[in-house]
Amino acid sequence: MTPPKSQEGAFTGDTTVVQAPRGFKALRPSDYERTLGWASDTWRADEARFGFSLLTPFGQVPDPAKLSKAAARFHLAPAITGWIEYDNRKGKKPVELMFGVGAGDDTLRPLTDTSDALLGFAHGTHFGYATVPARGVTMRQGFDLIDPKFRDYRGLHVIAGETGLVFTVPAGQRKRFPLALGFYAAGTITSGITASYAYTRVFTDLEDVLTHALAERERYAKVAALRDRELAHSKLNADQQFLIAQATHSYYGSSQLLWHKGQPLWVVNEGEYRMMNTFDLTVDHVFFELAWHPWAVRNALDLFVRRYSYTDQCGISFTHDMGVNDFFTPVGRSSYECDGLEGCFSHMTMEQLLNWVLTATTYAAHTGDIAWLRGKKQILLACAESMHRRDHADPRKRDGIMKVDTSRAAGGSEITTYDSLDVSLGQARNNLYLAVKTLGAWVLLEKTFARLGLKAAAQDARDTADLLARTITTKFESDTGFFPAVFEKGNRSRILPAVEGFVYPLFLGYTDATDLNGRFAPLFAQLRQHISQALQPGICLDEKSGGWKMSSTSTNTWFSKIAIAQHVIRQLFPEAMTEAAEAGDKVHADWQRTPGCGEHAMCDQIRSDTGVVCGSRYYPRGVSAYLWLSE
Amino acid sequence: MTPPKSQEGAFTGDTTVVQAPRGFKALRPSDYERTLGWASDTWRADEARFGFSLLTPFGQVPDPAKLSKAAARFHLAPAITGWIEYDNRKGKKPVELMFGVGAGDDTLRPLTDTSDALLGFAHGTHFGYATVPARGVTMRQGFDLIDPKFRDYRGLHVIAGETGLVFTVPAGQRKRFPLALGFYAAGTITSGITASYAYTRVFTDLEDVLTHALAERERYAKVAALRDRELAHSKLNADQQFLIAQATHSYYGSSQLLWHKGQPLWVVNEGEYRMMNTFDLTVDHVFFELAWHPWAVRNALDLFVRRYSYTDQCGISFTHDMGVNDFFTPVGRSSYECDGLEGCFSHMTMEQLLNWVLTATTYAAHTGDIAWLRGKKQILLACAESMHRRDHADPRKRDGIMKVDTSRAAGGSEITTYDSLDVSLGQARNNLYLAVKTLGAWVLLEKTFARLGLKAAAQDARDTADLLARTITTKFESDTGFFPAVFEKGNRSRILPAVEGFVYPLFLGYTDATDLNGRFAPLFAQLRQHISQALQPGICLDEKSGGWKMSSTSTNTWFSKIAIAQHVIRQLFPEAMTEAAEAGDKVHADWQRTPGCGEHAMCDQIRSDTGVVCGSRYYPRGVSAYLWLSE
Repeated sequence: MTPPKSQEGAFTGDTTVVQAPRGFKALRPSDYERTLGWASDTWRADEARFGFSLLTPFGQVPDPAKLSKAAARFHLAPAITGWIEYDNRKGKKPVELMFGVGAGDDTLRPLTDTSDALLGFAHGTHFGYATVPARGVTMRQGFDLIDPKFRDYRGLHVIAGETGLVFTVPAGQRKRFPLALGFYAAGTITSGITASYAYTRVFTDLEDVLTHALAERERYAKVAALRDRELAHSKLNADQQFLIAQATHSYYGSSQLLWHKGQPLWVVNEGEYRMMNTFDLTVDHVFFELAWHPWAVRNALDLFVRRYSYTDQCGISFTHDMGVNDFFTPVGRSSYECDGLEGCFSHMTMEQLLNWVLTATTYAAHTGDIAWLRGKKQILLACAESMHRRDHADPRKRDGIMKVDTSRAAGGSEITTYDSLDVSLGQARNNLYLAVKTLGAWVLLEKTFARLGLKAAAQDARDTADLLARTITTKFESDTGFFPAVFEKGNRSRILPAVEGFVYPLFLGYTDATDLNGRFAPLFAQLRQHISQALQPGICLDEKSGGWKMSSTSTNTWFSKIAIAQHVIRQLFPEAMTEAAEAGDKVHADWQRTPGCGEHAMCDQIRSDTGVVCGSRYYPRGVSAYLWLSE
Repeated sequence: MTPPKSQEGAFTGDTTVVQAPRGFKALRPSDYERTLGWASDTWRADEARFGFSLLTPFGQVPDPAKLSKAAARFHLAPAITGWIEYDNRKGKKPVELMFGVGAGDDTLRPLTDTSDALLGFAHGTHFGYATVPARGVTMRQGFDLIDPKFRDYRGLHVIAGETGLVFTVPAGQRKRFPLALGFYAAGTITSGITASYAYTRVFTDLEDVLTHALAERERYAKVAALRDRELAHSKLNADQQFLIAQATHSYYGSSQLLWHKGQPLWVVNEGEYRMMNTFDLTVDHVFFELAWHPWAVRNALDLFVRRYSYTDQCGISFTHDMGVNDFFTPVGRSSYECDGLEGCFSHMTMEQLLNWVLTATTYAAHTGDIAWLRGKKQILLACAESMHRRDHADPRKRDGIMKVDTSRAAGGSEITTYDSLDVSLGQARNNLYLAVKTLGAWVLLEKTFARLGLKAAAQDARDTADLLARTITTKFESDTGFFPAVFEKGNRSRILPAVEGFVYPLFLGYTDATDLNGRFAPLFAQLRQHISQALQPGICLDEKSGGWKMSSTSTNTWFSKIAIAQHVIRQLFPEAMTEAAEAGDKVHADWQRTPGCGEHAMCDQIRSDTGVVCGSRYYPRGVSAYLWLSE
């Protein structure tokens, strides 16, 4: 670690002042053990006598529109609880523990000035940390927290940038002290749609948040412990458990519950890119969100219809996202999509059309929210028609595969969510990944239309699914035993997302569509061969690292999508899970555990040969791995 | 300059992408001319065909408590106006001008989404820049502003971090385009005392601010031009004019007008230290503030009485400051002062007591605000008594010089505002600078008490001044012709602030106290000799640079205090202004013009040998140079 520079010299004019802190020994990785639980992050050192943990409890959150104030305070508190402890039962001297948080060159203020219930410090009105006043706990602030030279009437020096809580554990005792980290951003925080944080309706300020978090810390700890146990007791191996835990932390770190005109407004920010409710992430979050807060899925779907849908020459579709960096883009426009392009930043019209269909039908089927579904009948019919027209304007010439680029691309080509990969996954037109995803969408539409009593539409969806499945089988290369990634220009890339589209019928238990010997048997037979051959070193297992590659022709691989592919492959083609393929879990977990990725929370885009992130830092999308818990 | 890194690669996963911008040539200092006016900052290049200017108009601001909404919008707008132009009358091709502002890794949003009257960009709801929609003006946003690769339906790419306005000047034309930079921070921004910005009462949001600034730009430009002319037409040399202009910019950059419980709350932040209303700065700002917004002086004085006064073993005094970094410290406590110290960060009880007396009496005498003065009668009497007791508890043993350290120092020694200098100026007890400042305070108290009809108190003040003046004369070293800086331990440092205390009677025209042949004639004769000898190379003129040094024994020199010393010396001892002393102006200006100081706005603490800042960056205090305009 690099210790912070002391600001003392800037005041005293004495540039020879020794830079603080000194006389300390930073722990090396071998000196401590870190355990990431599903809802906790715990550090142990000094033969486990020292412990420090931050808890990020999560659970089922009822619809915020209907929460009581007390429930809203519990579920929406912008706070993290935690603890710090030392087991000094065998010690002969008291031990001092210190916990501090800095804000760059900025100073923090003592919370004792504004609250009797808090010992701690705050950065303005925005964030702070606190513990409960108790014997053996003191506050410290100075240019050098380890050895402060200057102390005011209460032992602090509030112009100095280093702050901390000091906890004393007497010899012969074991003590654990509670901690809370709180956040508060008042007022309007977005533009385009002007919204504020939902928690500001039930918390008055940062002090209120911190006091609440400390008061409710036992309840929060119970929720966190329950989640930790659920994951630890699952059948997943340790690497898989770590990946789910890391992904969940990163997902919640990207989420915002806003409030606009008396209603909740759910936003998941796209990690480092900060695009809001990027639809090709929403569709991957759906499995996780339906378990914990299904109203969030509905909330995003509604806003996509109300504000972020549009019509091109083929009919309805939806934007890639709703804006960026707290800025909601204008009606019908994303922040991402540009015109006249062939690759990254082009339009994703077909991809997002499928994403609305898949997310909406999955939401409705999983929750049984038939009232909501009925209200979306016309939208669903329009989506089906739009999907047809992106195949071919003339119904007689349709084969089920998207071949018509949106007029919005202004002469360019549509792309898929795999925007930064090579053409194997990037191009939408005649794309294997998108074709199978389209198949999944028709399967779900068939069930949904039937549920809505739309018999003709249901039959059309079923017929189209069958037609599309047959069409895909014709693309199989019987000589190689592979599908090409793109049905154009002699492409020979091999891709794992060939099976991604089956995750939806698998999730919803539509066994007629996932029966290997059922209506799609010929396609499944080919996909089994494709996947079994792809999961070999040098093709879709990286030769150097052993990690999974989305495409044989790109070293840019995405964990969130690996997670879906693994789930589908284990369900449909378990025999493809060779020892080499299974070994991927450890490779993927190690990528996220080490600095190449780990310093940026969960990373999604990773170089398969080096394990170093190449994009999508602080990413929420890894919660697609939540699917594994259903295996 | 170092061009910013393009964020494109983080999206595309392509780390080989060429870093933008390229193909540009940055101007070297010899390629452009920069002119800092009192209320403008103008850049010219390309044989003056290109011009860019930012205006920071200031003027007399009426008491904000009594402003109409329209007047409040004009005076309090958190905005800077400006322009960009090109003279293409002799050109054969159109010329494109670009103006942009970044926010680190963050993106900005197009203002056209929220306003029809603005072309420009904003960072969230906090700051932005705009021009008036016009032919030949377009917005641009991308990863590479000079050559954007990706454009959406309106030609922008809102996920990218670079934004700009592009102005086209056709061949044969000269065009100037207006600019506005605006800021907005809603809601509570301070703690301890919870206050918001005063401008939030009359502006709804950032768009409102920017629209107003552009609409009123001609009026603002007139005010700026008037100020520029006033300074340019003064008798001061170019170096002095530059120093005043730089200081004024830095002063306003440190100021905040807040609103608390229906009343204005004036704060000047202490530059990089961000301490609020540091009293030893307030006393130096008084000459400037009384010219433009005298209510600000009264506002600070009132809060010092109401919240930031205290009583020690000698009686009343005032805290060093009111807090730090938007955090108002508790009643009677500063953010700076610590206990048990001999040097920097110790208490400044006597210094701040004098500062309240000097600021209050100067305010009242200059403005004629007798009603306010009457309300402070008891405080003034208490101050006089407190000053006495810091000399000696026993009236019979008093000689006028502060010799009693505050009990708050808890065994330490009081210091003066010159906290980072050596003992020559740092120690309060038996200090020449503080003794002469005390003399100034008694002189002003005499006049003030007389004005209030307090005859006995006035006589006591007069007697004490005379006693103190006599005492100081006994400290003169007739062998060397100097005063020692500290009347203790054989100190032989020579200091220029020996005359600082006379700035107040000079400012108020109390000629009986500044008549070289009057009641203080013996003291003036000694001070003349002291100053004339001090202003020699190797003593208080730096041998290497020629700059003025506050103390012969420290290379840490402070521009704001040099400015006061220069003013007093030119008024009282003009014969001391030798050619070498006069040459200081250019040295001081060059320090602020070059990167050693200049990159941090006005700097106050400077190494006299190198001209490099050693503290007090972004400092407001240099407006003490405003005194020069009265010479």
